[in-house]
Amino acid sequence: MDMRPIGVFDSGLGGLTAVRSLRQILPEENLIYFGDTARVPYGGRARETLLKYARQDVRFLRSFDLKAILVACGTVSTTSLSTLRSENELPIVGVVEPSCQRALTVTKNKRVGIIATLASIRSGAYEAALRRMDPEVEVISRSCPLFVPLVENGRIEPGDVVIETVAREYLEPMRDEGIDTLILGCTHYPLLTKIISHVMGPDVTLVSAGEESAFELKRLLKAEGLRADESRQGEAEFYVSDRVEDFERIASLFLQEDLRHTARRIDIDQY
Amino acid sequence: MDMRPIGVFDSGLGGLTAVRSLRQILPEENLIYFGDTARVPYGGRARETLLKYARQDVRFLRSFDLKAILVACGTVSTTSLSTLRSENELPIVGVVEPSCQRALTVTKNKRVGIIATLASIRSGAYEAALRRMDPEVEVISRSCPLFVPLVENGRIEPGDVVIETVAREYLEPMRDEGIDTLILGCTHYPLLTKIISHVMGPDVTLVSAGEESAFELKRLLKAEGLRADESRQGEAEFYVSDRVEDFERIASLFLQEDLRHTARRIDIDQY
Repeated sequence: MDMRPIGVFDSGLGGLTAVRSLRQILPEENLIYFGDTARVPYGGRARETLLKYARQDVRFLRSFDLKAILVACGTVSTTSLSTLRSENELPIVGVVEPSCQRALTVTKNKRVGIIATLASIRSGAYEAALRRMDPEVEVISRSCPLFVPLVENGRIEPGDVVIETVAREYLEPMRDEGIDTLILGCTHYPLLTKIISHVMGPDVTLVSAGEESAFELKRLLKAEGLRADESRQGEAEFYVSDRVEDFERIASLFLQEDLRHTARRIDIDQY
Repeated sequence: MDMRPIGVFDSGLGGLTAVRSLRQILPEENLIYFGDTARVPYGGRARETLLKYARQDVRFLRSFDLKAILVACGTVSTTSLSTLRSENELPIVGVVEPSCQRALTVTKNKRVGIIATLASIRSGAYEAALRRMDPEVEVISRSCPLFVPLVENGRIEPGDVVIETVAREYLEPMRDEGIDTLILGCTHYPLLTKIISHVMGPDVTLVSAGEESAFELKRLLKAEGLRADESRQGEAEFYVSDRVEDFERIASLFLQEDLRHTARRIDIDQY
């Protein structure tokens, strides 16, 4: 048994959907979450900028004695993960490989869709991972740059013409290409599950990158004998790099729990 | 005559709409533009973070020998302008006071609306400036957080149900309050002039903060004998803090000219 916490980070608060999955899948683990809200969004930034930010995020988290890190940021997972792994000896799980593995298990017609931020799609990392695991898979990818601001403004409910119009524009061409599996490659997107399911129809299976990463982390902790005492209830601490005033409202949105969390603010430039 | 350039900065590329106004109003002046694209958006950030960023932006611009600075960023103008002025001896024009002055000149019923980013509205700076200039004015203010991402994704044309729906939600309540003047307090918003005019109707005058700042700068340069030779054609240089690849496409959108500009990238953390 290992009672040390798991570190989780994302560019902003979207990674809290991964925290939600971790609390369901590994309820006994302690979690330390860092959201780089002063520098969000990472989505459109240059590769060197992303690596610099990711290194700082990891250095901050490692100021705690951690047993593992979940990179809940799709953009960092697709651009910087191998470098972070080579520089840190503890297990680091990203959001790309677990969801690709799951998508290849689920698909029947080997036509897999992937939606994510512009930087993640540009990096080609999902496509490369899918092809490496199965050279015969056909991948249809699409960046959905308006999904993040729409989610953050609470436009997630069926019946909202704004999110429904944008979702149809992004997703109908993918549906018409005949995919049977769609990877949600950004932590914000699970909040749009109802909207996305409605456009894609019942024959397309959605795979949430954050959830699959939580399952992967569970396998990894078990294999390495790092799990916490399963009879206990884990706790979570939250850190951000910008104003904490809105944290409670937004955290409730992403965690889908009506809880009263507080976040502490840190200066990420110090790391 | 003073041939030194004018510095202009914004959190991202939205400030290029102010460059467009400057090129129309002061075509003989040389301009140096800096867009802090690595840290955009400033809109939701904490006051200390904004001041730190603004100081770095000014330090970079002042690595050139400038005669004046236009702060094209509404958020910086509303939170950090007096500090920047106290720390720099050259004239610095923001986007708040000139547009407030203009709105008070234009309004007949003394009911003035202001739309801007969340941070600008929260700061109360437009409201405070308007009331200081005319204690009897009634101010109706509203943050429009989805306008910036929608503009940046090119959703600016009449007939687009997404931008039209969002604009109606933000603006109809303001129209129903009976304002006759509306300040566009964010550099992105002039690109939505057609959409906003359509919702507000012909009886509401729109005041563009960037354009009024260009007029104010013209008055100031004239008063202090700092204008360039009016027979010449000024030039513009562009700097950004993140990837330059998309600059040409986005610059064409904001400048509303089909020109081939290149931007150079600088590391703003060095300033």
